Amino acid sequence: MAEAPAKRQMSSKEGPYELIYWGGMPGRGEFVRLLLEEAGADYTDTAHIENGVKEVLGLIDEGYKGDGDNPPPFAPPILRHGDLVINQTPNILLYLGRRLGLAGNESEGEGDSYRVNELALTALDGFSNEVHDCHHPISTGLYYEDQKEESIRRSKDWVATRLPKFLGYFERVLNSPSAGKGPWLHGGQLTYADLVLFQGLDGTKFQFPKAVGKCRAAGKYDKVFALYDAVLERPKIKAYLESERRQKYSLCIWRYYSELDVE
Amino acid sequence: MAEAPAKRQMSSKEGPYELIYWGGMPGRGEFVRLLLEEAGADYTDTAHIENGVKEVLGLIDEGYKGDGDNPPPFAPPILRHGDLVINQTPNILLYLGRRLGLAGNESEGEGDSYRVNELALTALDGFSNEVHDCHHPISTGLYYEDQKEESIRRSKDWVATRLPKFLGYFERVLNSPSAGKGPWLHGGQLTYADLVLFQGLDGTKFQFPKAVGKCRAAGKYDKVFALYDAVLERPKIKAYLESERRQKYSLCIWRYYSELDVE
Repeated sequence: MAEAPAKRQMSSKEGPYELIYWGGMPGRGEFVRLLLEEAGADYTDTAHIENGVKEVLGLIDEGYKGDGDNPPPFAPPILRHGDLVINQTPNILLYLGRRLGLAGNESEGEGDSYRVNELALTALDGFSNEVHDCHHPISTGLYYEDQKEESIRRSKDWVATRLPKFLGYFERVLNSPSAGKGPWLHGGQLTYADLVLFQGLDGTKFQFPKAVGKCRAAGKYDKVFALYDAVLERPKIKAYLESERRQKYSLCIWRYYSELDVE
Repeated sequence: MAEAPAKRQMSSKEGPYELIYWGGMPGRGEFVRLLLEEAGADYTDTAHIENGVKEVLGLIDEGYKGDGDNPPPFAPPILRHGDLVINQTPNILLYLGRRLGLAGNESEGEGDSYRVNELALTALDGFSNEVHDCHHPISTGLYYEDQKEESIRRSKDWVATRLPKFLGYFERVLNSPSAGKGPWLHGGQLTYADLVLFQGLDGTKFQFPKAVGKCRAAGKYDKVFALYDAVLERPKIKAYLESERRQKYSLCIWRYYSELDVE
């Protein structure tokens, strides 16, 4: 597979990027990491810095009032780049995607990046936000154990109705003329939407191994799983996933509870 | 001849914009409408076009494969503008916000729009997505009546923990130096994040009138409610809200059920 060429010369504006996120789990920060890793960008990550958690906590402290230009962030992941300190996962992804040549066809100006952004947002809705709520349907503030019955009910429904809906949607996108030759979602080239779909699916597979395995075996979503496999073969992604920088799944967005591992 | 080619005219940045959304309720389309109305933009809306629903259904039909450049949309709202057909509410808002001068300080280039985008995304998370899930915590595919007990449990928790969290966050943003003089969230000028916060709060007030009333009376979120009132006084918004174009709340994102109207 051909490597995507670097779209622009690295300039001082292109790095270094500072990712500010919890350590000890992939979480939403993982979407950002995969984009930075694929692009070979120069970045730091508080997950791997001693006392990095202090930086996260400082920026989301209720006493913090931003820095004059930047509002206080609501929650990590947070990206600092030059004068900009931004939060919200899809926001960071769009910002980086455009800078790192992963937001679609640049010859169309910024227009194509909105198509990529919409695909990323839908992948985040399905395979990150909705999957998270399968183990926290009542409250993010309560323990899982205190909403276990509701989680089981939601998970059964999600696996039966939403998992095929999202897989079916992305299979349709991959079969659409706008996808191009494949294996990618849009315009015949790798974009950050592909990386988001990969990570979302990887996390969903961790949470619902039986259901995702059954969907793969069913043969109805072959292009989605081919995309997943193609991301795994990207040399920089492969090296990243084998490195110590890739953290193990834990109590984050995607969680394994045997009673939720429904078919 | 100085005449521009037809395709270029169709792609004009000045509109007309075509909003493709369900009729009969404000829903997520309302965020888009408020932006277009405030800007005085030239737009059409399938909610007010005979057989407009057919256009919505055609674009989200499982047999639809996009148009060559644009992937098939996942769900409405959808915006068509020139060659671009995009979906996902925050994506449409960012696209329009930049074009219509509602995405922050343009003298900073596109950078400031990411700050506005993050505020809008957080307002959508809190006052649209999470509020919706208060009446559909188990499944979007089940009737409310089939998840009523879980809805009551979730609503009580949401009103107790998440409503003050989001209100407190935006109050903090409004008290931050990056907000400027007020009454707006960012940079001393109206942005689409203000309109999103207004609409989210308006819908949340419809769903949880007692709880929102109590929060207002508490005096802890005075700047948030001052922003809400200031949006109501924008001449174009005021005229819009008094017009027939503003649809009544119904069975959409925000719903009134007396048993969920908790304090």
